Amino acid sequence: MIDAPGLRWLPNGQSVLSGPLLGLTEGLDHRFLSLAARWDAADHRFPTFLAATVLERIDWFRSFPQLATFPVSLDPDEANLTSFTAGQPVDGEGRVRPTSFAPIHDVLTPAACYHLYDHHQGRAFDRPRYFTTRNTCFRREDHYVPLERQWSFAMREIVCMGTAGETRAFIDQATADVDRLVAAIGLPVRWAHASDPFFRPSENPQYLMQQVDPTKEELLFDDRLAIASTNLHHDHFGRAFDIRRDGEPVRTACIAFGIERWVAAFLHHYGTEGPWPAL
Amino acid sequence: MIDAPGLRWLPNGQSVLSGPLLGLTEGLDHRFLSLAARWDAADHRFPTFLAATVLERIDWFRSFPQLATFPVSLDPDEANLTSFTAGQPVDGEGRVRPTSFAPIHDVLTPAACYHLYDHHQGRAFDRPRYFTTRNTCFRREDHYVPLERQWSFAMREIVCMGTAGETRAFIDQATADVDRLVAAIGLPVRWAHASDPFFRPSENPQYLMQQVDPTKEELLFDDRLAIASTNLHHDHFGRAFDIRRDGEPVRTACIAFGIERWVAAFLHHYGTEGPWPAL
Repeated sequence: MIDAPGLRWLPNGQSVLSGPLLGLTEGLDHRFLSLAARWDAADHRFPTFLAATVLERIDWFRSFPQLATFPVSLDPDEANLTSFTAGQPVDGEGRVRPTSFAPIHDVLTPAACYHLYDHHQGRAFDRPRYFTTRNTCFRREDHYVPLERQWSFAMREIVCMGTAGETRAFIDQATADVDRLVAAIGLPVRWAHASDPFFRPSENPQYLMQQVDPTKEELLFDDRLAIASTNLHHDHFGRAFDIRRDGEPVRTACIAFGIERWVAAFLHHYGTEGPWPAL
Repeated sequence: MIDAPGLRWLPNGQSVLSGPLLGLTEGLDHRFLSLAARWDAADHRFPTFLAATVLERIDWFRSFPQLATFPVSLDPDEANLTSFTAGQPVDGEGRVRPTSFAPIHDVLTPAACYHLYDHHQGRAFDRPRYFTTRNTCFRREDHYVPLERQWSFAMREIVCMGTAGETRAFIDQATADVDRLVAAIGLPVRWAHASDPFFRPSENPQYLMQQVDPTKEELLFDDRLAIASTNLHHDHFGRAFDIRRDGEPVRTACIAFGIERWVAAFLHHYGTEGPWPAL
């Protein structure tokens, strides 16, 4: 387990960052934003929660039920709250002992870019559009590793909505820009085909499609840790969210950066104390 | 309801920010960080979740059960996940139809500074210490108002841990600094005694204490909207988290800034289009 000044690992699968390490995370995000500037990508700050109906449109719950975390509150009825406070709200093992819950309408954001498709639902574009967003993302896993596999982590994404040619050109350009960045700082990485962590993959048509037509490439640090990925979605989101380009469902593509994983790569490759390569 | 370019209000009580409005939120946080620099306050990035045991130490669940939002995942047992995916994960009203939940150990951060008391649990200081942190905070409310009362919002806090005299001096200095800031930009505000939104306040000793010995002051914009608050906690957190100063429970105090509420004040007072006063 990695040990670095300014890093504290918590039993709930999340980390605390301070000092130079916090500066490094912000420096990395600033660098990713400077890549986004090539396309004049407009930055958006979306909330932590995403309406469940948004993910239902792309059948996300059937694909990734194991990853979902829901924000849940107690039923606000006074008798229900009183019953909660009259009991023992947290037991000796640190488990909450809830009374009745209110209905659940949301999910904690599992990937930053989903918000953008919902945000542009029903729109029609007549030229390629580029957006960027950073969000805290949440994925329930069966085990966690500091900075590398956390219940919550920061993700910066750059998204292109356009024609098939424009999204392909976007991915090629983003890949070249990232190759230049990692070459400049000397980080040992390589690109590799990848697929998403589907539940019961062999029964999922989306997984099977990814095998036949690879649309996801991951940038692997040290042959094992995906610190970025590029994704060609074809018209998957354009259809689901009725976003059009010249009358057709828009094509979309994104590049995503897992910020804590870049920090992990820096600590493993350049040492935990810094100074780290200038960004 | 406020309408501004770059602001989008969502039905789940949260907002999307882009363009100059996103720049304004970052400019505000940068200005609050520059206030923190007076004390060399070390910046910390804490996770979104806080262990329920941390809040249980200060009996938070009995004081604010109505505000709590819990991060909840499905029981990862394959039969349980299969049963979820075999049904209709989201019903026609947009409500999630969960199968069994895994045990709940965490809460979505309700106030940024709680993490700091847990972080320093068991420590002994021999001089005043100052910290700052920004986090997304979550409070379930019975109604929401864009930028002013959201299910999730950004909070920057500066915290002092020291003697009674040092925490008092910190609050006085922070108040004077904020007074200078709002005078420089011409925002109409005043300080007023306040109390926290306790559940069944008349039965809560902590609420009664706040009435007898006012320890919370809110900075009200337009005589109605609290955009910042100062809080003297006496030895409340020092005792609960066993943080000591010269052998005694440390005293703590904080100043908190509700970033979206500052944005709301700017939009109401200076207009929705900008340019807004330089920070």
